[in-house]
Amino acid sequence: MPVDPVFALHRGGKIEMRSTVRVRDREGLSLAYTPGVARVCEAIAADPGLAATYTWRSNVVAVVSDGTAVLGLGDIGPLAALPVMEGKALLFKDFGGIDAVPIVLGTTDVDEIIETVVRLAPSFGGINLEDISAPRCFEIESRLQELVDIPVFHDDQHGTAIVVLAAMQSAARLTERSLSDLRVVVSGAGAAGVAVTRVLLDAGIGDIAVADSKGIVHGGRDDLTGIKQSIAERTNKADLTGAIEGALVGADVFIGVSGGTVSESAVSAMADDSFVFALANPDPEIDPEVAHRYARVVATGRSDYPNQINNVLAFPGIFKGALDTGSSRITTRMKLAAADALVKVVGDDVREEYVIPSVFDQRVAPEVAEAVAKAAREDGVTSR
Amino acid sequence: MPVDPVFALHRGGKIEMRSTVRVRDREGLSLAYTPGVARVCEAIAADPGLAATYTWRSNVVAVVSDGTAVLGLGDIGPLAALPVMEGKALLFKDFGGIDAVPIVLGTTDVDEIIETVVRLAPSFGGINLEDISAPRCFEIESRLQELVDIPVFHDDQHGTAIVVLAAMQSAARLTERSLSDLRVVVSGAGAAGVAVTRVLLDAGIGDIAVADSKGIVHGGRDDLTGIKQSIAERTNKADLTGAIEGALVGADVFIGVSGGTVSESAVSAMADDSFVFALANPDPEIDPEVAHRYARVVATGRSDYPNQINNVLAFPGIFKGALDTGSSRITTRMKLAAADALVKVVGDDVREEYVIPSVFDQRVAPEVAEAVAKAAREDGVTSR
Repeated sequence: MPVDPVFALHRGGKIEMRSTVRVRDREGLSLAYTPGVARVCEAIAADPGLAATYTWRSNVVAVVSDGTAVLGLGDIGPLAALPVMEGKALLFKDFGGIDAVPIVLGTTDVDEIIETVVRLAPSFGGINLEDISAPRCFEIESRLQELVDIPVFHDDQHGTAIVVLAAMQSAARLTERSLSDLRVVVSGAGAAGVAVTRVLLDAGIGDIAVADSKGIVHGGRDDLTGIKQSIAERTNKADLTGAIEGALVGADVFIGVSGGTVSESAVSAMADDSFVFALANPDPEIDPEVAHRYARVVATGRSDYPNQINNVLAFPGIFKGALDTGSSRITTRMKLAAADALVKVVGDDVREEYVIPSVFDQRVAPEVAEAVAKAAREDGVTSR
Repeated sequence: MPVDPVFALHRGGKIEMRSTVRVRDREGLSLAYTPGVARVCEAIAADPGLAATYTWRSNVVAVVSDGTAVLGLGDIGPLAALPVMEGKALLFKDFGGIDAVPIVLGTTDVDEIIETVVRLAPSFGGINLEDISAPRCFEIESRLQELVDIPVFHDDQHGTAIVVLAAMQSAARLTERSLSDLRVVVSGAGAAGVAVTRVLLDAGIGDIAVADSKGIVHGGRDDLTGIKQSIAERTNKADLTGAIEGALVGADVFIGVSGGTVSESAVSAMADDSFVFALANPDPEIDPEVAHRYARVVATGRSDYPNQINNVLAFPGIFKGALDTGSSRITTRMKLAAADALVKVVGDDVREEYVIPSVFDQRVAPEVAEAVAKAAREDGVTSR
C-alpha cells in the first residue's frame, strides 16, 4: 500500500517546543534556571507588567477548541480536533511569527469553557477560539472577553468576516461602486454568517438579507435564537420572507457560508456585475464554473480557484498587531483596519480574478499587523 | 549601567513554538491544513488511540503551577512564576526531547485547579505539577491522578526524592552499607520532605525521623496535618520528640529540604561515615565546608559544589519513559527504577565527591527513560 502523504506528514504531530536559549553548561543553567531565574520572578512579582518583556507570554496565543464544530465534520470531540488546532498553531508561527499552543478541552459546557479559559489566561497573551459550535460560540466569546484583559477572537467568525469584507471592498472598487450601493444575501447564520453580517453592517453595506436552513431571517419568525433575532432587527430592509432564492433576485452579492446549494436560475436572477462568494469547502454552494456565467467576481474557499477566501490572510496579522501593542481586546475598528490592509495589498492590481491577496503574499501579515496596531492605538486598548 | 546577563537572557522569554512541517506552497498547506487534515481528524474520531501517532500529544507535557511555592520565593502568583515554568519547559526539551508547555493558573483553589487540569487533559500526554504549596500539592496530585489517564507528577516531590534516593544508594554502596542499615533524619515536611520520606520508606530504609519547624514529627503532636499524621505513623521508631538535634545524635544521614539551619555541634554528633545532604538553595542547612569536617559524603542543591541534587537528573527521563510507553501514571516501581538508573550511571566510579551523575551527563535521560519504561511494563500501566 502506498504511503498516504497526509498521514505521513502528520506522524508525530506538526509542532514542537524549542528553547531559544542554550543551557549546555553550568553557567547557562544558572542564568536560565536556578538561581538566576529567581531574580526575574521577583521583578515580575513587583511589577507584573514586566511579564510582557521577560517571558514568552506577550507573543503566545492559546488556540482553544472543544471540538464541537470542526471543519465540515461537526462535533468530533477534542482529541480528533487536535490536528486542526496544531495546524492553526503552525500557521500562526509560519505566517505571523506568533507562538500558539493547541488547547483542546474535555468539556462542551459554556460556563465550564469560560471559567477554564479565564483560569488559563495568565499563561497567554491572547485567546483564539476555534471550531466551537454556534450559537454557543457567540456567548463564549463575548462573556470571556469581559472577564480577561487579553484579546479573545473567534476566528471562524471574524477571520472569515474580515477576508470577505476585504474581497467585497476590492470587488466594489473594481466595479466602481461603494459598499452602501450593494445589496447582499448571506446564506448561513452560523458563526461565519453572523460575523460576516455584523462586519458588513459595521462597514456600511447598503442592505443585507440573511438566510438559514429555514429561509430568510425576518422578525416574523418564531424559531429564532437570540442572535438571529438581533440579525433580523438589523437586516432585511425589504422585509423579505420565504426561501433564499427570492432574496437573490436583483441582489449584488451572494455570500455562502452554509454548505447548502443554490440553483443556477437563482444566480441568473442576480443583478449585473454581481459577486458570488461561495465559500463552503470542499463543495461551494454554487459551482464556480456556473457562477462565472452570471457573476463578475467569483470567490471560493478553495485553493485551486482564484480569489481564495482564507482566514490565514487575517488572523496572523491581527494577533500580531494586537500582541505587539499589548491590546486588551480586538475592536471593530481593528477588524475593519485589517480588511482595509488586505484591500491595500491588492491595490491597483485589482481585477476579477484578484480581489484578495494570495495567502503566500509576504506583505499581508505585516500590513495587517501595522493597520491593526494603529487602530488599537486609536481605540485606546493598547498597553504598550 | 552594565547589562544584567540574567535579564538579557530572559528578554522575550526562553521558549518558542516551531512547526515541524513546511507549508510554503498550496500543496503543503492542503496536506497540513484543510482539506487534508480532515482525514486525520476523521481517523482519530473513529479510533482515539491514533491521536498518539498523528498529533504531538504523546510527547507533550503541561507544566502546571499556581505560583504558590515558587523556588524559595513562596506565593508570588502565576505571572511571576512563568519564568520558572518556561525554564522547566526548556529543560524538558533540552534534556529529554519532550515538548512542554507552561500553564500558570489564575486560581489557587484546590478543586478549581483539579477541574481545570482535567478539562485540559485531552491536550497533553502528561502533567508536571510544579511549585504548588504543601499540603495542597498532595491532594491535587492524588485526586487529579484518579481523574485522568495520563501521568501526573509533582516534580518538587518526586524529582527531589528520586535523586536523593539515588545519591543515598550510591553513598551506601561506597561505605558498604545497605539502605536498611541507615538511620535518616529529614529536616522539612513540605512537598520534598514528605516525598523523600515516602520514597525512602518504599526503598527499605531502616528508620527515619522527620522534623518540621516545630520539631520532630511524632504521633503525640496535636498540630499535624493529615499528611504529617501519616508520616508520624510510618516513621520515628524510637518515638523521639523535641528538636531535630536530638534525632541527629548517632544518625547516619541528614537530609535538609527545609531551608532551616543545623548547628555544627549537631552535625558533629552524627555517626561515623555519615551523609549530609543539605539541599536548601542558595543557602544549605549546613555549610558544606562545616559538613565536610564530620560527614563522609556531602551533597547540596548547588551547582558550585560536587554532588548536586538536581531534579533535572530525574524528570526528563521519567516522563520520556512514561510517554514513550503511553503510561497512565508514574508508579512507585517507576520512581525506584529511575533512582536505580542514576546509581547505575555512577557505577563503579562512585567516590565521596561523585555519588550522583553530573546534570550534563548525556547517559542520564536515556538510562532513566529505559528503566522507567521497563518498570511501567512490569506494572501494567502502559498503552503501547
